[in-house]
Amino acid sequence: MAERAVTIRDVGPRDGLQAEAPVDPQRRLDLAVALAGAGVGDIEAASFVSPRAVPAMAGAADVFAALPALDSVCWWALVPNRRGAELAMDAGVKAVTFTVSASAAYSAKNVGMTPQEGVAALGEIAGVLGAQDADIRLDTVISYSFGSPFGDVPDVGVVAAMVDQIRAAMPGTITLADTTGTATPRRVAAVLNRVGTDVGLHLHDTRGIALSNALAALDLGVRRFDTSVGGLGGSPFAPGAGGNLATEDLVLVLEDGGIDTGIDLDALLRISRGLSALVGHDVPSRTSAAGPVPSFAD
Amino acid sequence: MAERAVTIRDVGPRDGLQAEAPVDPQRRLDLAVALAGAGVGDIEAASFVSPRAVPAMAGAADVFAALPALDSVCWWALVPNRRGAELAMDAGVKAVTFTVSASAAYSAKNVGMTPQEGVAALGEIAGVLGAQDADIRLDTVISYSFGSPFGDVPDVGVVAAMVDQIRAAMPGTITLADTTGTATPRRVAAVLNRVGTDVGLHLHDTRGIALSNALAALDLGVRRFDTSVGGLGGSPFAPGAGGNLATEDLVLVLEDGGIDTGIDLDALLRISRGLSALVGHDVPSRTSAAGPVPSFAD
Repeated sequence: MAERAVTIRDVGPRDGLQAEAPVDPQRRLDLAVALAGAGVGDIEAASFVSPRAVPAMAGAADVFAALPALDSVCWWALVPNRRGAELAMDAGVKAVTFTVSASAAYSAKNVGMTPQEGVAALGEIAGVLGAQDADIRLDTVISYSFGSPFGDVPDVGVVAAMVDQIRAAMPGTITLADTTGTATPRRVAAVLNRVGTDVGLHLHDTRGIALSNALAALDLGVRRFDTSVGGLGGSPFAPGAGGNLATEDLVLVLEDGGIDTGIDLDALLRISRGLSALVGHDVPSRTSAAGPVPSFAD
Repeated sequence: MAERAVTIRDVGPRDGLQAEAPVDPQRRLDLAVALAGAGVGDIEAASFVSPRAVPAMAGAADVFAALPALDSVCWWALVPNRRGAELAMDAGVKAVTFTVSASAAYSAKNVGMTPQEGVAALGEIAGVLGAQDADIRLDTVISYSFGSPFGDVPDVGVVAAMVDQIRAAMPGTITLADTTGTATPRRVAAVLNRVGTDVGLHLHDTRGIALSNALAALDLGVRRFDTSVGGLGGSPFAPGAGGNLATEDLVLVLEDGGIDTGIDLDALLRISRGLSALVGHDVPSRTSAAGPVPSFAD
């Protein structure tokens, strides 16, 4: 398989569905497998969060037990803490996303730690995982990397210091999350100019700017993006987050621009058009409703 | 008043409302005047189309009779044909938008002419207007400049030839319209590289790409954009057009990037939040619902 010019991780089965009315694990599994069939190479399939905290993510181990082993796909799971890490290891997870928050207000409220303590705690967990399985992939997601709606003001310096701390404490990659859609192309450039472009971006489309932010990052050299089929998404802990950047929106623009994603847009749109039956409402992506662009010679 | 770095023409009172259930002229007038109060310097306030063809635009002369004369605002009216031009002149209109179509299929169906015949006909009307009033401003809008949903395939060469024909036949400026939201950043660049950047862009957000297209054009040097408050819009003659690029989406990103539009975002958002009562449904702009971005230091 040719190397993809841009890596898209579809987080639909996890971030896309976590704030919806619960969908049973079999149908979340079906969605993940369908995405693989459309050529998506990285898929966040489940979250090993407590089902009491997030009922929509119950049954993560069942999902992972049934995922097919495919050379072409890396199946990711979100792990919120040490207990989740243990459950994920028991379930055979080989690729883990951790989250820490650049918002001190969010971090204090939701995990009772400072952002710095959060990174230190993750470093310990990562050490345990690495000792158990040297082949495990880790990706640390920094939430609120482009602003916070909680009154505190994370700035570029805060985010850059967290990136430095994570690079020192943790193996693996880093993804910067725009958790409630407060990024702009200028803010994206300001952060990337400080931390470099060897990061992924996880963008929410709260204000309709997510695609523009992704393209600004692409221009600067970023090559990894989290998206969600249909533009589903939102956090039970981040009111007003808005959906994720829709996978089909990004794939349409990248493929039209000659940038290979490895994803078949028509197959992806067939999946997207089936989502309203899964979640009981229209999906946010306008591309999902309108379909591909008609041809135009240049 | 300082010169604006980017000129935004809000077409909400015209393109935004023409496909909605009819709103009486007084309320369309109120919307236009409110936009002026928010700092919008160019406003398309009415269309002198036959009220039988587009009932929502009835009363254009009444709107223009009541518009305040403001040094800071240019009030535009769409004129579809010679009869419309005569009515507009009688109503005291000083800035006229004409439309021609790069789609031969659309042009044949809607005006019974080839695109070239359409430009020639406009040239005659423009000559009559210019003879009556030397100070009149004209802007010729080329619809379907980035693709057609009607099966024909306007390409860059077709659009470039029309631009050349219009420049030879017509005074005034040219605006390229993405009538049904089929543009992409690559297509925008391909067209602008052929016709130059001394054009305006009129973008529809059918696929959620309009803002990205605008920013791609801005990077290349375009400084004039048509937008619609709330992202309202659509054509009675172009099914599936989707709304216009929302004024508040573009203003948010430009002002955040230090690019002066002369428009007060908070005032604009107050107008936008009142639109649902006017049209009876939520407006498409996500920025309208979510509001400005919280501060972020860089």
